[in-house]
Amino acid sequence: MREVFQQELAEVQSGLIAISKDVHSAITRATAAFTSSDVSLADEVIGDDLKIDEKTIHVDDLGVEILLMQSPVARDLRFIVATMRMTAALERMGDLAAHVAQLARMRYPDRSAPTDLHDHFQRVGELDVAQADRVMRLLETEDSDLIDEIIAADDAVDQIHKEVLQFLTKHEQAGDAPVAQIVDATLANRYFERFSDHAVSIARRMRYMQEGTLDEIEPGE
Amino acid sequence: MREVFQQELAEVQSGLIAISKDVHSAITRATAAFTSSDVSLADEVIGDDLKIDEKTIHVDDLGVEILLMQSPVARDLRFIVATMRMTAALERMGDLAAHVAQLARMRYPDRSAPTDLHDHFQRVGELDVAQADRVMRLLETEDSDLIDEIIAADDAVDQIHKEVLQFLTKHEQAGDAPVAQIVDATLANRYFERFSDHAVSIARRMRYMQEGTLDEIEPGE
Repeated sequence: MREVFQQELAEVQSGLIAISKDVHSAITRATAAFTSSDVSLADEVIGDDLKIDEKTIHVDDLGVEILLMQSPVARDLRFIVATMRMTAALERMGDLAAHVAQLARMRYPDRSAPTDLHDHFQRVGELDVAQADRVMRLLETEDSDLIDEIIAADDAVDQIHKEVLQFLTKHEQAGDAPVAQIVDATLANRYFERFSDHAVSIARRMRYMQEGTLDEIEPGE
Repeated sequence: MREVFQQELAEVQSGLIAISKDVHSAITRATAAFTSSDVSLADEVIGDDLKIDEKTIHVDDLGVEILLMQSPVARDLRFIVATMRMTAALERMGDLAAHVAQLARMRYPDRSAPTDLHDHFQRVGELDVAQADRVMRLLETEDSDLIDEIIAADDAVDQIHKEVLQFLTKHEQAGDAPVAQIVDATLANRYFERFSDHAVSIARRMRYMQEGTLDEIEPGE
């Protein structure tokens, strides 16, 4: 019984790691598709999102089965509870990567964002990829330093989010900027920022699992 | 023991209902603040959001305690699992109401959205208020007809979301439209649309609780 239990917990963990790898791949390709208007890459990301959704449902089901059959306590219980929130966050990160890819897809062959913002989106995309990489390593190693790193790294994402908003709203009038570009840039800015928020959410849940406390309320953004 | 258990389950349910009432109040006031640029109403909604966050953490903690002390099975287990996803959805609905209020707050005394879109936002706000009302009643009555109503009502919200996006992107150039208005309208449009998505997510979780199956993957949007 005990052995089956440990095996099931390991299966949940490897499921989470597998999803985080898919999410890392999705945001890497979505950022490339968005900044280079690569439509076939965007299609790939959009198509692959379903696999992430299916995997999260599978891990959730495993978690419910463990609750039912094993009645876990202490850290094991917190692991399952944390897992259910982490799958939701990973699933949303996959959605957001697909949303970024959709923006690249929809406006093709035009660029998805004003040229002046190209560097901003390149940078925030790289920061998101780095967050996804940390999440992957956190789920593998449970190294608590990575929790702090993920929370700290969110500030740089928020900073770029603010800069893009300021850039977009600094002009009194849009003049000859295509409105579609402003709309797309506003949405992309939001998606890139939310992606990192979910990484922070996963980091907090990991801390909850390790320490038993959820010391801070999730950020409102 | 059994009596304590039933009392704890009832406490979780009444906690969910209380949060849904707060969310209903928040989206009602946020919509009014946004469409009438009422800054003090907006401040109220933003200030009250912390209460929603605190209540969701309290209900989650109760859920974990029940898992630990009672090892629920069957419908009771599904109720607790569903609760943890429903609190997350309710918390996000509160955040989105606060985001709408923040848009009203930031651009004061200017209107937050182009005048041509005023009716659209009025209507989608009303649809969201109606969704919050259905969620409230669903949590109280567990009436499965409300599940279908919530899922069906999301289509009208998506339709307005599409119309606003089309309106915003139909002009080749923005001309004399203030860019800040386009940015705000884009964000408001997204917030109103997401609010209803979370209502659908709650409806699906309620069906999972009742029937034990989660027949559809959560919508990507």
